[in-house]
Amino acid sequence: MSSAGILIIGNEILSGKVVDSNSPFLCRELRSLGVEVERISVIPDVVETIADEVRSMSRAYDYVFTSGGVGPTHDDLTMDGIALAFDVPIVRNEQLANRFRKVPNANESLMKMAMVPEGARLLDAGDLTFPVVVVANVHIFPGIPSLLQRKFQSIRERFAGTPFELRRVYVKNHESDIAASLHDVIAEFPDLMLGSYPRTGREAWGVLLTLESRDPDYVKRALDYLLKKLPPERVWKVE
Amino acid sequence: MSSAGILIIGNEILSGKVVDSNSPFLCRELRSLGVEVERISVIPDVVETIADEVRSMSRAYDYVFTSGGVGPTHDDLTMDGIALAFDVPIVRNEQLANRFRKVPNANESLMKMAMVPEGARLLDAGDLTFPVVVVANVHIFPGIPSLLQRKFQSIRERFAGTPFELRRVYVKNHESDIAASLHDVIAEFPDLMLGSYPRTGREAWGVLLTLESRDPDYVKRALDYLLKKLPPERVWKVE
Repeated sequence: MSSAGILIIGNEILSGKVVDSNSPFLCRELRSLGVEVERISVIPDVVETIADEVRSMSRAYDYVFTSGGVGPTHDDLTMDGIALAFDVPIVRNEQLANRFRKVPNANESLMKMAMVPEGARLLDAGDLTFPVVVVANVHIFPGIPSLLQRKFQSIRERFAGTPFELRRVYVKNHESDIAASLHDVIAEFPDLMLGSYPRTGREAWGVLLTLESRDPDYVKRALDYLLKKLPPERVWKVE
Repeated sequence: MSSAGILIIGNEILSGKVVDSNSPFLCRELRSLGVEVERISVIPDVVETIADEVRSMSRAYDYVFTSGGVGPTHDDLTMDGIALAFDVPIVRNEQLANRFRKVPNANESLMKMAMVPEGARLLDAGDLTFPVVVVANVHIFPGIPSLLQRKFQSIRERFAGTPFELRRVYVKNHESDIAASLHDVIAEFPDLMLGSYPRTGREAWGVLLTLESRDPDYVKRALDYLLKKLPPERVWKVE
């Protein structure tokens, strides 16, 4: 069972100018691969802040995914922050530099993007002009969603583990009516991941319950147990 | 100048089931009030994790805003986490309990929501059945977006400070073409918040530049300086 932390770097998210769509994408993808995301942090473009967060996430989780701050401008400080986190210098990566030299109109600012922390590796499926740069367990992605997605797809199978089995039960009650039954389920199935989400709009149901585990049989038994606790006429749908 | 941290509590975000719309809302609102959001953390429903993050954010920022984990079910652990962070017990708040007793069909699970950290204060503009619970500088909000928004609107004026002046320049270049000019602007106007965002779709411009400060005159002078650095025919629009 693998764990992950997601680090979103960029003042534009914190100041409300841009809505982060990269962490929702990564959460969905990683979940479907069986990787458990344990934290998302959104922080400003400040070298020391990036370094502190990278260091702490790199120790705490199997994989770290960063997004943002890798372009050629003054506020692109992710590489500096990661280098500081691992106490290594920034050096020119010749593999990257050679690829960038082939880009039409390559200038000094573009070549700056070949400067990465010493010891960085390059990962892709052989399909990218600009592969994913990896330092220790930190996978470095750009902030532009279409580029991040393409890069992630190129390496996603590396993270594949045992996926989660997920069942959904939609009930017509309020959360407070079923809280006691949910406590019983958790007492009987302590390893179950049981989610309870009240509707947020005018849905026909009142609460969505999610039952999850990596063991499909365990989920099935917990689901049977839950359905015996709920009055059948209050169950709107089971998925 | 006030600072803020936003703490989103909920496995449903980390597992990709629900997209967090509360932190984008709070970032936009706080920015318009002149409050600088310095960090967003998304963490699971685990008491010790909530306590650690609340403690660290409460020390680091003027205001902390939490979202999620305040319902009546087994995975609603925000109040416990905040109580642990400040080393106080959870006690029944009689003001809240009295309000809840008036709710039709109030049951034990609903009454559980009157249990809050000792010393908590209630804040609203006199318009809410369930006011905002505040412990020290930590403002506790529900995860349901419509409820969070209504509660925030009820108390938003309390956070009003000096707003930011923001100007936008859309240029037709690539980021790497203008990186050097941006460096010059930052050297001349070190207190300017200068953002540089490449287009993500098929927009007519190539890069959006944002110039910000709480001092409108400073922004104006920086804008004039920047526009002198850029070839006029490459400037698509100034806002």
